[in-house]
Amino acid sequence: MNKIPVGVLGASGYAGRELCQLILRHPALQLAFATANEQRGATVRIAGRDVTYVAADDAPLGSAELVFSALPHGASKEWVARAREAGARVVDLSSDLRPGSGCDGITYGLTELARGSVTNAALVSNPGCYATSVLLALAPLAQQDLLAPGGTIVVNASSGVTGAGNSPRRELLFGEVAEDYRAYGVGNVHRHLKEMNATLAGWGADADLVFTPHLLPVARGILATIVAPLRAPLGDALALWRRAFGHEPFVEVSDIAPTLRDVAYRNVARISAVPLAGLRSPSLLVTCAIDNLLKGAAGQALQNANLMLGLDEAAGLPA
Amino acid sequence: MNKIPVGVLGASGYAGRELCQLILRHPALQLAFATANEQRGATVRIAGRDVTYVAADDAPLGSAELVFSALPHGASKEWVARAREAGARVVDLSSDLRPGSGCDGITYGLTELARGSVTNAALVSNPGCYATSVLLALAPLAQQDLLAPGGTIVVNASSGVTGAGNSPRRELLFGEVAEDYRAYGVGNVHRHLKEMNATLAGWGADADLVFTPHLLPVARGILATIVAPLRAPLGDALALWRRAFGHEPFVEVSDIAPTLRDVAYRNVARISAVPLAGLRSPSLLVTCAIDNLLKGAAGQALQNANLMLGLDEAAGLPA
Amino acid sequence: MNKIPVGVLGASGYAGRELCQLILRHPALQLAFATANEQRGATVRIAGRDVTYVAADDAPLGSAELVFSALPHGASKEWVARAREAGARVVDLSSDLRPGSGCDGITYGLTELARGSVTNAALVSNPGCYATSVLLALAPLAQQDLLAPGGTIVVNASSGVTGAGNSPRRELLFGEVAEDYRAYGVGNVHRHLKEMNATLAGWGADADLVFTPHLLPVARGILATIVAPLRAPLGDALALWRRAFGHEPFVEVSDIAPTLRDVAYRNVARISAVPLAGLRSPSLLVTCAIDNLLKGAAGQALQNANLMLGLDEAAGLPA
Amino acid sequence: MNKIPVGVLGASGYAGRELCQLILRHPALQLAFATANEQRGATVRIAGRDVTYVAADDAPLGSAELVFSALPHGASKEWVARAREAGARVVDLSSDLRPGSGCDGITYGLTELARGSVTNAALVSNPGCYATSVLLALAPLAQQDLLAPGGTIVVNASSGVTGAGNSPRRELLFGEVAEDYRAYGVGNVHRHLKEMNATLAGWGADADLVFTPHLLPVARGILATIVAPLRAPLGDALALWRRAFGHEPFVEVSDIAPTLRDVAYRNVARISAVPLAGLRSPSLLVTCAIDNLLKGAAGQALQNANLMLGLDEAAGLPA
Repeated sequence: MNKIPVGVLGASGYAGRELCQLILRHPALQLAFATANEQRGATVRIAGRDVTYVAADDAPLGSAELVFSALPHGASKEWVARAREAGARVVDLSSDLRPGSGCDGITYGLTELARGSVTNAALVSNPGCYATSVLLALAPLAQQDLLAPGGTIVVNASSGVTGAGNSPRRELLFGEVAEDYRAYGVGNVHRHLKEMNATLAGWGADADLVFTPHLLPVARGILATIVAPLRAPLGDALALWRRAFGHEPFVEVSDIAPTLRDVAYRNVARISAVPLAGLRSPSLLVTCAIDNLLKGAAGQALQNANLMLGLDEAAGLPA
Repeated sequence: MNKIPVGVLGASGYAGRELCQLILRHPALQLAFATANEQRGATVRIAGRDVTYVAADDAPLGSAELVFSALPHGASKEWVARAREAGARVVDLSSDLRPGSGCDGITYGLTELARGSVTNAALVSNPGCYATSVLLALAPLAQQDLLAPGGTIVVNASSGVTGAGNSPRRELLFGEVAEDYRAYGVGNVHRHLKEMNATLAGWGADADLVFTPHLLPVARGILATIVAPLRAPLGDALALWRRAFGHEPFVEVSDIAPTLRDVAYRNVARISAVPLAGLRSPSLLVTCAIDNLLKGAAGQALQNANLMLGLDEAAGLPA
Repeated sequence: MNKIPVGVLGASGYAGRELCQLILRHPALQLAFATANEQRGATVRIAGRDVTYVAADDAPLGSAELVFSALPHGASKEWVARAREAGARVVDLSSDLRPGSGCDGITYGLTELARGSVTNAALVSNPGCYATSVLLALAPLAQQDLLAPGGTIVVNASSGVTGAGNSPRRELLFGEVAEDYRAYGVGNVHRHLKEMNATLAGWGADADLVFTPHLLPVARGILATIVAPLRAPLGDALALWRRAFGHEPFVEVSDIAPTLRDVAYRNVARISAVPLAGLRSPSLLVTCAIDNLLKGAAGQALQNANLMLGLDEAAGLPA
Repeated sequence: MNKIPVGVLGASGYAGRELCQLILRHPALQLAFATANEQRGATVRIAGRDVTYVAADDAPLGSAELVFSALPHGASKEWVARAREAGARVVDLSSDLRPGSGCDGITYGLTELARGSVTNAALVSNPGCYATSVLLALAPLAQQDLLAPGGTIVVNASSGVTGAGNSPRRELLFGEVAEDYRAYGVGNVHRHLKEMNATLAGWGADADLVFTPHLLPVARGILATIVAPLRAPLGDALALWRRAFGHEPFVEVSDIAPTLRDVAYRNVARISAVPLAGLRSPSLLVTCAIDNLLKGAAGQALQNANLMLGLDEAAGLPA
């Protein structure tokens, strides 16, 4: 069988590298090119194969049926346009085209909730890692209008350091991160809030969101811990998520709060929910764990690409 | 100068061992005994000295002017009584005698907020590690009646594994905890909630508390991230904590959200606060970091003991 | 296509669990049973599937064409015999039947060096993780008689904690292992020395071996650092390994000393070698990295099983 | 009591910062200045105090009785001279003036073995961290001529990442170092070999040294694992080290191989030794653990400074 050529822009970052690995192990795809401007010409070992980076300017965009852009926020938009002009379909992993970015009408690839439009899209904006964990967790509540109107949803999320990229910065050195844990973007100012707020509003939710990200001393994984005020108590809280996601290959609903190890190296979001005891108003604690590089980035991007290319949605993805 | 003899019950756990180390390095204290039933007879190296554990039954309780009990919850209460009968003053690190435990009238040693009563107490119940981080962070808001009446305070706290003790359990193995992160006690059912709620109520706060603890892949440290709804917006949020704690040797107020590394191996609580943007009702994000074995256990216990023994409150404590 | 049924004895340990995962993702195998006496009846999530453990006594040994035994050393031998009696071929991951164990004539499955006999074997003894890293590194030197006769080979090897199993022991707690590093089995008394010495002797090597294992604060991976005295200087040291392994899918020869990250989650041994400067007698520094759970255990076991079952040797194995 | 003013050049690196902390907690010293060119003007919190960095050019060298230079190798030598000209005694933590550097006649501050000359020196070159661990371990063998003449000593040493400094480099990011372990400087070419070889030769040892350093995923600590061939078997191996170091406050001799946790945050070298079984020629396995920032750098530097200033050698140093 001829394999379908796909390319990766920005292949030397953590997400780009993960994409290359998924593609090299994929039964129906081949890696047409992998760009990395600063490391152009360098050969790296990925999935038992030698991959040589090229400069983005030298990438044969038109040779790929689909191009993934894992370029930095701000730099991606231009290359998405170039790849589209060259005739390739595109999955953009940056935040440049996401809800709240000011670019309207672009398919937002939260796969389980947008399967139809993704399948037919030529361009998909891939959700951010934090947004994936928070939005999959909240979707059943928001879409079925179960959240307390005007209430405040409090999200604490913690991410492994690969979420911050691999550019050398002192605060990301092992000697600084090991045995440490910190909140950042405090005060509800994280740049990805727009993506979450816009999506929740699109689902009709009337709620405020407090989002505080934290940096974990782990390489990969995100855990979102969410306090969600309800319009009214729910009888069987988990049943809501079971109905929404019970048939999904890449969403697991669990009795027990999920942990990072449950989802590491898997393209899976694992969700649990439990009522909060002792409060005057009904609220749930919803927890969601993902691997930030898979379901939170490269995995979900490939899940979308599989749909766009008419392949089995699960092809090449570790469940 | 003659050093004052003090003893440690339960010296082989993480907090007990930290206590022994602090005592051995203290300029005015000497270690009268250190008990560890399962390891009785064993000699361990602490602070450059060999310490031999004895069984609790063999401990010369009366030889110590003050006894620290780092025995497990449930087992401590009886030994506190025995030590008191033997004439020793006692600092109890267990939860047996804390607010909400049903034992009334015992001094609760949140040192900075109870200095007077601690100084004159013969028995002090030492606060839990989570409670220390949460209560120091919330005290200025609660004591000055700035919290929104009937509001919900959402606390997410993350602790290093030494908070869970050193009894062998599979879920605490390195192979399980490394690269993992998890919520536990979900649903607002953690046993230390009583201690926090009782203390907040004692300060006159009319608020619900949601408390979700998490297990971090670090050895030591607690970070509490708190969303606190306010009665009205505060002009300069940090000024409140600066007024409350600016003169304290073991509380630091910081412009920047504190991290575990800021306080590791120090008997210090480091606190920051910032208004939450984009919400309909005024709220603060308050963060507080402590070393769970020092300010959250052995360090605060020694701080209390210093006061009880008429010593410099800071003696032997790393700031 | 009908999948071939295979079973796993001892499926709840780290290696057993890794085997189950490999089998569940394998294109041509199905998991006939997975035993775990202490957890019998428990259901765990592996590779997106629910696996229910059975007691070994209840395992339908005869229903499997091949049985992997990941039972503890000492306990495995009996079950290997039972599985053979039931008609299954067997790969034994324990040390019970390895060279030096006193059980002669059993195929030792260091796959790259025993492909022919493994292919035709009904029973294969799978090499230990340390032995795999050391023997693959030394094989070209030993088999071509390049080692200094009567010389001393010094091996320092460091393993992640999954090599020590997941039974709860205090010294394996996260609070003990994190930020620690230690030698163990010091004095050349590690029980796996016999396996290495017997194999080296079988290759005709006349050398003493000093083997000192160490425990690393990582979950998985082994790095062996070997000083090998030579009969005479080698011109191009790496060429030797390139000739021996250049065509192998699961052995990589590298200019640069390999690291654990190079091989994590891959069934690969990565080897480098460099002359030692400044010495009176010629010596090499050979380094070899493997993932102890894959090439050092479950991966190599599956590689052997693939051969025994007439499948593609690389099927289901991450390169 | 008036405290003695001392200064720190290069105070923002890991060793420099550790020095500042030790000085701020020292009963008889005060911090006259702390330089950090890139961070000049910045204020950092150390040991509960605010320290403001100045540029080296602005440091009042003459105001200090003693200056510690923790400047990078190559840059230190010039500033050592400037501080000497300004009248200060100097402890240089760089490698610029160590044995093998070409600078003769400078006191090499391996404290326990050079107490007399250190006490009277105006300038001391502080040993490297690796050299401290290796030389303290080998000193009794070398100085008593017990090593096999012409033999090869094989040293494998592993260091935490603070040994590599805190300049941002990709290979030191948490995402790269966590779960990794690697050899570096392979082939016996590490720049600190000269220091070790020169010192061993000075003790009359006639042996080759193979030194392979490794990078550990821990913040601090060094473990050296040494195979030392002997002239003849030793009866009671440990007795040799007990005689040499039994009275030392900062060297511990242990029956059990030392680990990083044994010495973390302590100014102690902990050493064990055991005969190697099964070899044709008598050899020992000697292991030595130190905290690379304390006994391997700032701690030993202060130990030397205490002697130079006529203070208690142990003042301000955690045993």
